[in-house]
Parts: sequence; C-alpha cells; structure tokens
Amino acid sequence: MAAIRPLFVVAGVGNAAGTGAAAARVFSKAGYSVALIARGQSSLNSLSQELKNAGGEAAPFCIPSYSPGNFSSVFSSIGSQFPASRYSFRAALFNVGYAVWKPFLEVTPEEVQESLDTNVAAAFSFSREAILKFKQNTIDAENPNRGTLIFTGATASTRGNTMTSAFSIGKFGARGLSQSLAKEFGKDDIHVAHAIIDGQIMTGAALARASDKPLSGLSPESIAQSYLYLVNQEKSAWTWELDLRPAHEKW
Amino acid sequence: MAAIRPLFVVAGVGNAAGTGAAAARVFSKAGYSVALIARGQSSLNSLSQELKNAGGEAAPFCIPSYSPGNFSSVFSSIGSQFPASRYSFRAALFNVGYAVWKPFLEVTPEEVQESLDTNVAAAFSFSREAILKFKQNTIDAENPNRGTLIFTGATASTRGNTMTSAFSIGKFGARGLSQSLAKEFGKDDIHVAHAIIDGQIMTGAALARASDKPLSGLSPESIAQSYLYLVNQEKSAWTWELDLRPAHEKW
Amino acid sequence: MAAIRPLFVVAGVGNAAGTGAAAARVFSKAGYSVALIARGQSSLNSLSQELKNAGGEAAPFCIPSYSPGNFSSVFSSIGSQFPASRYSFRAALFNVGYAVWKPFLEVTPEEVQESLDTNVAAAFSFSREAILKFKQNTIDAENPNRGTLIFTGATASTRGNTMTSAFSIGKFGARGLSQSLAKEFGKDDIHVAHAIIDGQIMTGAALARASDKPLSGLSPESIAQSYLYLVNQEKSAWTWELDLRPAHEKW
Amino acid sequence: MAAIRPLFVVAGVGNAAGTGAAAARVFSKAGYSVALIARGQSSLNSLSQELKNAGGEAAPFCIPSYSPGNFSSVFSSIGSQFPASRYSFRAALFNVGYAVWKPFLEVTPEEVQESLDTNVAAAFSFSREAILKFKQNTIDAENPNRGTLIFTGATASTRGNTMTSAFSIGKFGARGLSQSLAKEFGKDDIHVAHAIIDGQIMTGAALARASDKPLSGLSPESIAQSYLYLVNQEKSAWTWELDLRPAHEKW
Repeated sequence: MAAIRPLFVVAGVGNAAGTGAAAARVFSKAGYSVALIARGQSSLNSLSQELKNAGGEAAPFCIPSYSPGNFSSVFSSIGSQFPASRYSFRAALFNVGYAVWKPFLEVTPEEVQESLDTNVAAAFSFSREAILKFKQNTIDAENPNRGTLIFTGATASTRGNTMTSAFSIGKFGARGLSQSLAKEFGKDDIHVAHAIIDGQIMTGAALARASDKPLSGLSPESIAQSYLYLVNQEKSAWTWELDLRPAHEKW
Repeated sequence: MAAIRPLFVVAGVGNAAGTGAAAARVFSKAGYSVALIARGQSSLNSLSQELKNAGGEAAPFCIPSYSPGNFSSVFSSIGSQFPASRYSFRAALFNVGYAVWKPFLEVTPEEVQESLDTNVAAAFSFSREAILKFKQNTIDAENPNRGTLIFTGATASTRGNTMTSAFSIGKFGARGLSQSLAKEFGKDDIHVAHAIIDGQIMTGAALARASDKPLSGLSPESIAQSYLYLVNQEKSAWTWELDLRPAHEKW
Repeated sequence: MAAIRPLFVVAGVGNAAGTGAAAARVFSKAGYSVALIARGQSSLNSLSQELKNAGGEAAPFCIPSYSPGNFSSVFSSIGSQFPASRYSFRAALFNVGYAVWKPFLEVTPEEVQESLDTNVAAAFSFSREAILKFKQNTIDAENPNRGTLIFTGATASTRGNTMTSAFSIGKFGARGLSQSLAKEFGKDDIHVAHAIIDGQIMTGAALARASDKPLSGLSPESIAQSYLYLVNQEKSAWTWELDLRPAHEKW
Repeated sequence: MAAIRPLFVVAGVGNAAGTGAAAARVFSKAGYSVALIARGQSSLNSLSQELKNAGGEAAPFCIPSYSPGNFSSVFSSIGSQFPASRYSFRAALFNVGYAVWKPFLEVTPEEVQESLDTNVAAAFSFSREAILKFKQNTIDAENPNRGTLIFTGATASTRGNTMTSAFSIGKFGARGLSQSLAKEFGKDDIHVAHAIIDGQIMTGAALARASDKPLSGLSPESIAQSYLYLVNQEKSAWTWELDLRPAHEKW
C-alpha cells in the first residue's frame, strides 16, 4: 500500500516571485505535494512545472477571482487531482492580498470592496475549505495535528496609518479571523497561525535593486522557512502570531 | 445674524433604546442639533419627536441599507435640512453594527458579506461623508476642532474568539480604519476616536433584567457621556482609543 | 454637621509646571482638597500656597525619596492633616516618573535601579496606600465609587525603543500593575486607570518655545482635564486605558 | 587549526526539569557548547554531567543571586572556561523568573523588590553581558548573526490580572527591555526575541499528573525547539515576539 502524501495548498502565488511561490518551493522540497492557486494561469503553469522539474509534485489551479463560490470549486478540483486515497491536506497558506496605499478621500468604493473581498471574504472562504479538509484527517504519532492554516499578514494588520485606510480594513479583518480560528479549532488539533510581515518583501525588481544592501527587505524564502517551522511546531507549544522583519529594519 | 448651531450626526439608532439613541439625547441636551440615521422609520420618528419634545432640534433620516451610495445621499439630505448657513457638522458617531455569534463552520457567505458591508464598508462611507463635511468647517477660539468622528467598537474589535469569526472580521476592520483616519486627519484638526465597549450594553430587556444588579452591563447613557467627553477633549490631548466596561466586569 | 470633602492625593508635582501640578489645580477648582507629594519642598510650598490663594484647600507633603516606607508615612501624615471626620480620599494620581534616554550599553546599574524604584516600586507602594484608604470609603448615590487611582504613562509604556531600555522597564512595569489593579479592585468599586501620554508634555521652557506652534506637545492642563473626566466616569462604563496626544502629532 | 565552537549561555536552569534545562539539552544536541547558570549547585552539576554523558560539552556556573555584579563575574568565568580562541558566544537565554501570585494587598515590599530584581534588573544585566560578548563576534557566510538573545516571557508579560500585580510588574518590564534591545541591536546583526509562554509549563510533577492528558500544558522540550528555531531564523526575517501555548488551551 502506498504511503499517504501530505498536501500543501497555497492561494496567492502571484507572479511566482513572492512569498506564496517561495512557500511552494520550500514545502515541495520538504516532501509536500503542492496545489497552487492563483488568478494568472501562465505563472501558475510555469511554477508548477518548475516544482516538478525539481522532483516535486504540483498542480496549478486557476481561479477567476477570490470569491466564496470559487474556493469551494477549486478545493473540489484539488480533491479530484489529489485523491484522499493517496493524499491528505495537511497545510494551507492564505497568501492573497490586495494592497492599496492612498489618501483616504481618494479611495473609491470599488477599492474598499476589493480590499474586503480579497483580504477578508476570500480568507474566510479559503479557511472554511481548508478546515473542512483538515477535519477529515486522523491524528497519530506521525501526524499529531490535523492541519495547519497560515495567514500572511502585514504591518497594516496591526497598525492603521495615513495612506492605509483601505488596506488596513482588510488586513485587520483577516487577523481577527485568524485569532478566532486559532481559538476555535485548537481543540480539534488544527493549528492556525498569523505572520505579521513587517517590512517590504523583496520580489523581482526589489530583490535586484537590493542586491548590494541585502537587508533592506524580507526575502520570500526566509518567510517561507518560517511557515514550514510553524507547520512543524510541536503540539504542546503552538504559535498563533509572530512578527517577521529584516534584521536592520527600523521599527 | 443667528448663531451657527453645531450638528451631531449619528448612524445606528436602532430601536431607540441603545447607544446611538442615548448619544442623540446627550448631545441634544448639550446643545447640538441632531441628525438621526437608521434603517427603521418608526423608531427614528419617535426618537426625533422625543428630542424635540425635550426642547431639542432633531430630524430623522431613514436609510434603506448601509451601503456607500446611501450615505452620500443621506448626508446630502441632512445638508438640505440643516443648511450650512445655520448649522455646522461638528460631531459624528458611527454606531452601526452587525453582530453575529456562530461557530465558524455555520457562518454563511451572506453573513460574512453583511458583516463586512455593515461594519466596515458602511463605516468607510460614513467616515468619508463626515470628514468631507468637517473639512468645510473653519476653526476659531470657540471651535478649535473641525469635527470629531467616533466609532463604537466592541470586545470583538481587539480579540477574535470562538463564535466571533464573522463578527471580528468586521470590528477589527473598523478599528483599523479608525486608527488610519486618526493619523491622517489629526493634522487637519479633525479628531477620530474609537471606543471599545468591552461588555454587554444594557438595552431594553437587558436593562430591565439587570435592575437589581445594575453593574452587569454598560448603560448606553454612560457610554454616551464618554462620547461627549471625547468631542470636548482639548486639542493638545486627544484620545484615539479608550475602553469602557462596567466596574464589576471580569476581564 | 459639616459635609465630608473629597480629597485628591497627587504624587509627583515636580517643579509645579507639569502634569501633577496641573492636576492639582484642576481638581482643586473642581472642589477637591489636595494633598501634594513631591521631593522638593520649595515648589511644593509655592504650589500649595497658590492653590490656597485661589480659594482651594491644599497641603504639601515632602518625601525624601520614592520608597515604600516613605509613602506609608506620608499617607499617615496626610490622614492627620485631613482627618476622616471631614475628608475622604477619593482620587489619587501617581505622576512620578524617572525618565532616562540612553543607549543600552551606557545605562548604569544605578539607573536601572532608579527606574525600577521610582517608576514601579514607588507606584506599587503608592497604590497600596491609596487603595487602603479607598477601601474605607462608603458608597452612596452621591459617591458611587470608592475611589479612583490614575497612573501617568508614556509612549515608553507600550513601546520599547532604541534609547529607552532603562525607561521602558519602568513604564511597562507600571502599566502591568495598573491593569492588575483595575481587574482586582473593580469589583470593590475602585477605579484604576492608565493614561498613555504619547508625546512631549509642554512644561515651562517647552511651553514658551512652542507658543507659536501650540500643538507640538501636550498641555499639562489638557491632560489634567482628562484625569478629572476619568474620576467622574459613570460606574457602568469605566475606562482602564486611554491614549492622549496632540492633534498634530505624527504617530 | 580547530574550529570555533558556538556557545549557548542559559540563565535559569532551576531544578533541571524546566525550560532552561530543556533548552540546554536541545542546543547541546544541535552542536552548541553550553554554559549553565543557576543558583543551585547540585542540579547544575547533574545537568552538566548529563549533557557531557550524552556527548555534549557543558559547564556549570553557580550564581549566589541574580544581581548585576554577579552576572559580570559569571560571564567572566564563562569566558575563562570557554576561551575566545576556541568558542564564540552565539546564543543566550534569559529564563530566570520570579513568579508570585497573590492578592495585591498581601504582596510584601520584599516580593516587589524580588520581582523587579530577578525579572528585570537581572535581565538587564544578563543582556548587557551577552550583548557585549556578541559584539565581539564577526559575521560571515556561516555565521550571519553576531548572536541571539532570547527572553522567556509569560501570560503576565502582556496581561495584568488579579493575583498577578507583583508578577506582572516584572514580566511587563522584561518585555519592554526585550523590544528596546531588538530595535537597538538589530542593526548590529544581533537578534533579540521574546517568547510569551501562555500556559502552564509542565515540569516534574505537572508532567506526571498530565500524562494522560498531554496537552494541558507546554512541554519544556517543545519550547526549547522554538528557541532553537529563533536562533536559526534567516536574517532577512527575524521575529521579535511569538506566543506559545498548548493546542487545546482556552485563551
């Protein structure tokens, strides 16, 4: 009988250069099969191919937009691709974010809606699907948790600021959700964690610009290592929240 | 020339027994004309009449639902009823709340949407209208502030808990908004404050039940006195956030 | 029979130009007899005289240093001067602070000790004396509380920063104390509050320098008005903590 | 030329059954030489021997009490035992704590002093010695950090409560210190972290009692694994603070 492989689902792999993609690589290398969710098909496909070329197992799941119904159908597709007979959902990362920095009076109703939809309602829906899957898992010596759900937060998750009114409403909201879930599902051996990324994440251009000053931002790979650590935490000492920032950051 | 009267706008007067209505009474007694906004016409009318009977000036503004477009048109109606030639918008209270306590997996997508719409998007829209009005005010010795905007928060504004996933997403979000606004508009002499109501507000039935144990909850009138204090704070020492709870509360 | 007068005890009136002295003036004007505690006899005497000249009742109590034994004997002296037959301790302000801004490696063991002694151990001792007095009070319609104890906090009460290691250990500690006391003594109708003064307090020279830009700092008088408000809060809605900062402060 | 071995210094190994001792074991297994500091010679000796029997390198350093002068001399002894020619101080854990749960009015001045001395002044002094050592380290590809300093915090580090007035003053203070240090020394590639242990740590008797319900408390070993993770965090994403609690904890 073949062993059951652990499955990692990540929503928000963007252009394959950021935190979501880095997490996909790190978890793939750590032995997880990876289900990739994003809105752009082409970067999804190339990341999926990259993981497979490196010896991993991965599949892309394109989502038209981050709305409740869509997550339900994406998870159903993931379940078909990675059947329960051979895979178990053990880790999920909600790395989707809609960031907007604007003076309050310039924010449009559409941007407010987009921030709430993408940062909060989508997080709610994604969490629901992940937790429903986790609840089907059994626990044993090798798998003491039913699953781990991680949220990528930001400075705007705990501090409202000028220019971040539209962003903070979303990031504060997702943080409140993550704390509620951590408290509600801990007793079911489901671990929910929230990482406050307190600095600029260096992706693509930023990484290149920063090549001479490597600590002006966070490397997606370093963040991803922290996510893997959260998933591996022993059950008697789980973290709900940690902050992450570059060593040289002023804060 | 007649003196300019200060105007207090309050959204969320519910059944006229809670915090919004108590604030209307307190501000009316303190010399403010009061614009009352709620979704139910009949309690609006009776509260408006009550304030007038007590010698105050008030008008009801019924809103079909707390959506962005609606606030814009309500504020426009308020402006017609209370013209700039004789009134100035000096205080506003966003006391609207959609509270839902439910296990996470029982929350419907509609409830998520309603929490975000009512607790956050409506707060965003209401704040926009209030701040636009405040910015038209001049400041002088008698009116050192352009205006004060207050949010009614809750325990769920800072603590997610089992049963509050759907509520916390909204209350956390509104708190993030209020901090952003406090920072952005302080320099314009506009004061934004957030009150964490950390306990049960005693309205109607609860008040009656509690008559023998008066400190099992917060009296709406006491909360309203705090709101008036926030409005009257001297400009060199403004409060963004305070907590309010009964003396005997366990917390 | 003469009426019982309420007594306000304030520790830390410094050079009579800051928050403690402003609170003494505000409470005196509001009808409180005032017991003034500080380490410098001459400014104590002149402030006491000033309050009496303005029609108030006050007495100076010089303390050699802020150590536990000293507060016990000072409160005993205050009790002799303001006997229970005619006065009741109703409000107390711990406004003592030892502020030090220095790079960590330059802080001396003596400065660490002084910060802990003055900011924390003295607060502990002052609180003990105040609460023992409050507990002797009866409550009735006119005096629904047994007493109110207020702590003057600072930015360093909630945020450690470069240059504030020695200061933060003291201010964080006093904040922890104030929250413990608020929770422990609320049920006894004793109100404990903590004010985060998040900005520069303009005393003497600073006030003069700031005369053209009145909002670069907090006026001691404005802070004192907030303290009076805290004392007057209705019992069904007490505040443990509020922040205070100038309208134009960047934070 | 022999390789330089990394040295881990831990203060507070108590009866060798708690967090400090678990950290010593975990770091020893991970390749660190370990300097053990505590007040009791006999458990120090037996833990040191245990680590050596397991193939590690360790030495006990008995301290008469946690006062500033004592840490200076202990670090000097450690430096003699583990000379710079062969060892470099790379990690330090302040695991000392003086916990006292008592009604406020029963706390003695001696207990206040002991809490401040042990929880804060000792932490200040220990931090000074550790940072002075770290600053002598060079950084290179293999050692990107100069060193990591970790504080063991508690629920009482962020929440004052009834019964914890004397404990909170110490734990709040140490938390303020840790944040100041994290901000001041990050730019020097020195990592300072604070772990909020939000639950009962199961040592000795508690572990035995809990054998049938393994999640009623935190295992010292799990906490220690988190400390090792903090030390190994990549420099572009450092954590100042994380919370740790059992999966099934109500919070």
